[in-house]
Amino acid sequence: MKNMIIGQSGGPTAVINSSLAGAIEAGLSSDKVGTIYGMINGIEGLLQDNLINLSDVFQNRPSELNRLKLSPAMFLGSCRYKLSGQDEEMEKLIKILEGYEIGYFVYIGGNDSMDTVQKLSNYTISHGIDIQIVGVPKTIDNDLNGIDHSPGFGSAAKYIASCVREVAYDTSIYSIKSVHIIEAMGRNAGWLTAASVLARKEDLDAPHLIYLPEIPFSEKRFVEDVRQKLEEYNSVIVVVSEGVKDEKGEYIYAKTGKQDNFGHTQIGGASSYLKEVVEREIGCKVRALEPSVLQRSAGHVSSLTDVEEAFNLGGVAVQGALDGKSGFFSTLRRISNKPYSVEYTMENVDVVANTEKRVPRGWINKSGNDVTREMIDYVRPLIEGVPQTPYRGGLPDYIDIRHLDARKQPYRD
Amino acid sequence: MKNMIIGQSGGPTAVINSSLAGAIEAGLSSDKVGTIYGMINGIEGLLQDNLINLSDVFQNRPSELNRLKLSPAMFLGSCRYKLSGQDEEMEKLIKILEGYEIGYFVYIGGNDSMDTVQKLSNYTISHGIDIQIVGVPKTIDNDLNGIDHSPGFGSAAKYIASCVREVAYDTSIYSIKSVHIIEAMGRNAGWLTAASVLARKEDLDAPHLIYLPEIPFSEKRFVEDVRQKLEEYNSVIVVVSEGVKDEKGEYIYAKTGKQDNFGHTQIGGASSYLKEVVEREIGCKVRALEPSVLQRSAGHVSSLTDVEEAFNLGGVAVQGALDGKSGFFSTLRRISNKPYSVEYTMENVDVVANTEKRVPRGWINKSGNDVTREMIDYVRPLIEGVPQTPYRGGLPDYIDIRHLDARKQPYRD
Repeated sequence: MKNMIIGQSGGPTAVINSSLAGAIEAGLSSDKVGTIYGMINGIEGLLQDNLINLSDVFQNRPSELNRLKLSPAMFLGSCRYKLSGQDEEMEKLIKILEGYEIGYFVYIGGNDSMDTVQKLSNYTISHGIDIQIVGVPKTIDNDLNGIDHSPGFGSAAKYIASCVREVAYDTSIYSIKSVHIIEAMGRNAGWLTAASVLARKEDLDAPHLIYLPEIPFSEKRFVEDVRQKLEEYNSVIVVVSEGVKDEKGEYIYAKTGKQDNFGHTQIGGASSYLKEVVEREIGCKVRALEPSVLQRSAGHVSSLTDVEEAFNLGGVAVQGALDGKSGFFSTLRRISNKPYSVEYTMENVDVVANTEKRVPRGWINKSGNDVTREMIDYVRPLIEGVPQTPYRGGLPDYIDIRHLDARKQPYRD
Repeated sequence: MKNMIIGQSGGPTAVINSSLAGAIEAGLSSDKVGTIYGMINGIEGLLQDNLINLSDVFQNRPSELNRLKLSPAMFLGSCRYKLSGQDEEMEKLIKILEGYEIGYFVYIGGNDSMDTVQKLSNYTISHGIDIQIVGVPKTIDNDLNGIDHSPGFGSAAKYIASCVREVAYDTSIYSIKSVHIIEAMGRNAGWLTAASVLARKEDLDAPHLIYLPEIPFSEKRFVEDVRQKLEEYNSVIVVVSEGVKDEKGEYIYAKTGKQDNFGHTQIGGASSYLKEVVEREIGCKVRALEPSVLQRSAGHVSSLTDVEEAFNLGGVAVQGALDGKSGFFSTLRRISNKPYSVEYTMENVDVVANTEKRVPRGWINKSGNDVTREMIDYVRPLIEGVPQTPYRGGLPDYIDIRHLDARKQPYRD
């Protein structure tokens, strides 16, 4: 019997804790696994020996494990730490892991985090160290290769589509001409922006224009598009990716000229910039809306499909590690759309680490201002289902590591 | 038997259609009421004879009426039209109403809309015209007098509190220092901003600072407050009202200097301005978040208490009109907090028209950067309960006037 350790890394999603819950449940129910530990703030916390005993927290507490499954963001805390891959760092990590008699290492994260799984498994395999290193994928951006769609994407997609639909209702009540520009996350891949298309009912047409970073953005064509839609509709709703770039490859948000106090151009603001363009060129009422981090952790409107898949992927990864797989991540393939079904499997981490999956050209319309039926069919099943989120005092009752006593070390707040 | 007409006016809320549904149900179930009409775009639409036959749409369709009850924004469309009060305009209105044999006139709106109820009822009463004019209150701002709390406020409060809680979860995962400034609506009254306090659990402390427009805003004290909270917390969450003003009475958002293309200072942006202040004075990571119109129409996270009260107030107003009241609006008084209960009554519209209720000084802490226990006890019951919103294709399936065939006249889109 060996112990297990789990970490989370990268940006938050609504369901990364569902994967944690799935991994914990699989670990608790296996007689091959002793104690389950969690890294506080991912690999960075592990290097500082900052752990929590997850068995203590969740053993024989199914309702707490269910709360974890339905809580957004990251129970264990995150990091954005990239392993150097140098022997000294690896030796330090292995020494800590061996100190806790770890046999199974589970890391939940995006393409950067899968780099950690890759480097660590390469090292353990080449040095004959008996620790199975596996990954569980996540990202709201849906830009991971080797998987039909990323856990976290479905919930963020549902959030964006809900927002767009509600903004459309909000603005439709007035009889004056207006334009609303909603900015969705996704620096290089437009999946989340594209998912806003689901806000459309059969003949309620918002969003009227959708711009992805996969297509070079022309300000002139944008103004023409908006002008044309304003002839058809009183209230025009535009969804634009934060990552749209002009023909020269310059980010539109960079045109705002805003810099942080380190002199870096600030990310985000494409919608604010385009608001000014519409005001200047067309002169009607315009609003820019940037839901920003609200779209990453909107547990109150998460997708049940997404929650369940993330949970299952956590369990599949643990099973893979128990079966002796190392350097693999859990993944899913879509078997059919109607009825929607997927199958789970393990895939070599090389296909996902440090790569990016972008929206195929064929799923964007010719004019580059909308998406096609293929995109709708692809995204629609991913937002289905309403989880039974526990409520208390009128608000979702999420779990929080700061309210636990069973911590091995205090959370460094 | 006389006919009834209903209109909606002002800004949207998550539950103004609940009041419409309540008024329709009360009208349909009374044998004193013949046909129920709706004004398309409020009093402005009525002046253009733009009506819809609501009896045709909702009679014997309880599930459609229930969808209406759970759909945000305004089914009938809105206007921001203020009656001049001159005889010519009044005569035109009365002529149209008499043409449809209207005996009961129901107007759902905020303090400006209650001005319409006031002017119209003054005219009908003084001219001996047999039309009962009543109002149903609504506003997310909660700034109406003569009512314990406004329908629409509870749902917006729940939205803001959910956002703040989720942003707190989102940001807590990183171990670097950061400040998030969330801007809530409310130009002169800080109720909605204050409601963000509900995001707090017992010892999870976000929001850490709350600034209402009732207290003059000092930039210097704000910086000191934030600096102090950063010593206690990694991630500091600030909620600020869009309407905060400095000691001279100048709106903070006006300091951004942004103007629309009519040369008017743009409303909103206090958070963006304060973000720059924190960057300059403290120099940590800062984000400004402006949920903007998302907080008005967030039907996907509405409060069941709010939905039911808004529905009941629609019915109470109709009953009042049937009982011969004119120049009155339906209102509610809180009887107790534990258990929470209210009683419904009718009140003279003079107490609400063109007035504003602000947060009492005693409900704000001494330092002016937080609220007191009284505020928490007041708001908490208003966000309770989760409505059974109908979902379809993964999204709330709201009702939309554009999908109906029973319209008397096409919606002017």
